[in-house]
Amino acid sequence: MAKGTRAAIVGIGATEFSKNSGRSELRLALEAVTAALADASVSPRDVDGLVTFAIDNNEVQAVGRNLGLEELTFFALTANGGGGGPGTVALAAMALATGKATTVVCYRAMNERSQLRFGRPTAYEGGPANSHTVDRSWTAPFGLTTPASYMAQSAQRYLHQYGASSEDFGRVAVVQRKYANSNANAFFRDVPLTLTDHQTSRMISDPLRLFDCCQESDGAVAVVLTTSDRAKNLAHPAVHVVASAMGLGPQQHGMASVYRDNIADAPETRIVGRQLWAQSGLQPTDMDVANIYDHFSCAVLMQLEALGFCGLGEAPQLIRDGGLEIGGLIPTNTNGGQLSEAYMHGFNGITEAVRQLRGTAANQVPNARLALVTGGSHVPTSGMVLGCD
Amino acid sequence: MAKGTRAAIVGIGATEFSKNSGRSELRLALEAVTAALADASVSPRDVDGLVTFAIDNNEVQAVGRNLGLEELTFFALTANGGGGGPGTVALAAMALATGKATTVVCYRAMNERSQLRFGRPTAYEGGPANSHTVDRSWTAPFGLTTPASYMAQSAQRYLHQYGASSEDFGRVAVVQRKYANSNANAFFRDVPLTLTDHQTSRMISDPLRLFDCCQESDGAVAVVLTTSDRAKNLAHPAVHVVASAMGLGPQQHGMASVYRDNIADAPETRIVGRQLWAQSGLQPTDMDVANIYDHFSCAVLMQLEALGFCGLGEAPQLIRDGGLEIGGLIPTNTNGGQLSEAYMHGFNGITEAVRQLRGTAANQVPNARLALVTGGSHVPTSGMVLGCD
Repeated sequence: MAKGTRAAIVGIGATEFSKNSGRSELRLALEAVTAALADASVSPRDVDGLVTFAIDNNEVQAVGRNLGLEELTFFALTANGGGGGPGTVALAAMALATGKATTVVCYRAMNERSQLRFGRPTAYEGGPANSHTVDRSWTAPFGLTTPASYMAQSAQRYLHQYGASSEDFGRVAVVQRKYANSNANAFFRDVPLTLTDHQTSRMISDPLRLFDCCQESDGAVAVVLTTSDRAKNLAHPAVHVVASAMGLGPQQHGMASVYRDNIADAPETRIVGRQLWAQSGLQPTDMDVANIYDHFSCAVLMQLEALGFCGLGEAPQLIRDGGLEIGGLIPTNTNGGQLSEAYMHGFNGITEAVRQLRGTAANQVPNARLALVTGGSHVPTSGMVLGCD
Repeated sequence: MAKGTRAAIVGIGATEFSKNSGRSELRLALEAVTAALADASVSPRDVDGLVTFAIDNNEVQAVGRNLGLEELTFFALTANGGGGGPGTVALAAMALATGKATTVVCYRAMNERSQLRFGRPTAYEGGPANSHTVDRSWTAPFGLTTPASYMAQSAQRYLHQYGASSEDFGRVAVVQRKYANSNANAFFRDVPLTLTDHQTSRMISDPLRLFDCCQESDGAVAVVLTTSDRAKNLAHPAVHVVASAMGLGPQQHGMASVYRDNIADAPETRIVGRQLWAQSGLQPTDMDVANIYDHFSCAVLMQLEALGFCGLGEAPQLIRDGGLEIGGLIPTNTNGGQLSEAYMHGFNGITEAVRQLRGTAANQVPNARLALVTGGSHVPTSGMVLGCD
């Protein structure tokens, strides 16, 4: 936080990650929140704040009522989709800093595979006239009807502009699958992936192949925050919100931001990074571990550059040098990420960062003290630096 | 604000209020925001934060892009509907207090009459399974399918429990219409209303008659906030956010909160009021003027009681004594409110409060220094106290 009381994540919880949860999104949300509160040793009666995404199907009053919460004094929603994960934590931290709440739960629950598949055109097009559907009406007639098709524009330009190849994207998928293979909670825990597998997987939207795309998943994830002072007396070592920020850039659309000067960049992530380093006085090389939002493999490269881990066009070499592996420049998405653990709109990246700082990750970075977490690039986004004492 | 830098409203703007704007909701939003920035003498380039309702159809990136904003470092949405007005200001104030932004615009734009009428059952029922539609499925089969039908449950109970009459609701409509008749921006500026008119108007949902219900309106309203320090150098005297709060109570539903011990009360408003008085050190009698959310006339009575202007069941007498008129206990909805100016999800109550504190209201309360503004009762809500130097 720039000013005010410091906030800390003191509890994490999640359901299993699947392709068909077999239960309602509300139940998923309640299970994840209940697990996070138990992890924190915090009673539901102590919760006075709830934050989620505007597109989460579980309204704050439904979650509050079903948890038996008596009164809430803070509730807010983040805009858009996958950019909002760290933004929920930022809002919670702001509520704690300004005295609006003392204990805030952030959650995201979705039957995104069994109920409403984001990867399908029908999930995004049509519906009532609003700025979202009007924006889409300029691109949908030309075949941009899915997240993969939007992101493919930036990916293709990236390959052209920086002389990169599909294998450079594939290496992200391969290293993350390796992490997933030793993470019992990862959906792809038992399925290895080679670069050849990646290169021979079917094309979804050129140049993005199947294994460049995140999964579609059912599940829920929640985190509990309180002030750093209160955090001292709880079950786990506090994970402090060292810095948090949101970013929305010039010519920003919801994914199809194709009218920018350089579409092979992630300016909204750059705006987030700039604030994180300014707030914290830290720099990329201070980070021990990162969860960089991977809706698509290519987005990891563009964000590494926008965050300052390397220059424009230099991420392929960073990754070829093993930079995303434990022992590399910035161990990234050590849970397997959304490509290989589950697609939870980035919330599982938040809980993985907490595990790393607690020292309890399946793929533990030795002595991790500082973790970076980002929301999705190419949409209004957010990010944060977490740290332990 | 409880802690941190103080925030101030420095600009207000609105479109005309009509039943058919003849243009898109996006254009309405841009017109209102542009007007508010001009009123504040603030350049769009200085805006780094945007806040609106989750159900506003204009995404922050669409508003930002069309205004030519380069970068935003804060954007957030309030939950639910009409409870969110002061909540947007609360979020903006939190962003200013914690250094997340320096200039924040809050907006609400809707073609709520010509495009999507909230008063009709189809606007609320059906759609994908989520906590909202599931909640509704418990009440819709019994005929609760519109806001008026939900609120009628509480209104009926209020009459029974406190020995009040439909005329007690009608007096709210009459005093507000009188204000509208001298407000050139009010939709009903040229139409007088007597208590007899009210008593003979058709029943919408017993005991709520036509003139107990807010209008359905097209239009947009926006406000500009910055820190109180920066506000000193701008066009108008600063209107400070003295206190701001959100509230969500036990057994909270979105309007149909009918499983409470006392459904003739507004506990979410009570939670908001308690915080406002604690934060500010003020009390109801310190308020010079109020904008109390009037989706329905009866809600004004229940909120007056929940906020502490009088005891439970005592609002009818307060109103009979002329308490809502200028010179009365608490001049209320001096713009005509949502019953008689326009239904703008309470945003026009915010701008009216600012005008009162600037001394430029059509129905000016002499020497007004402190104004109370609330969001809708019976939903997750919010409120604030504004003040001038």
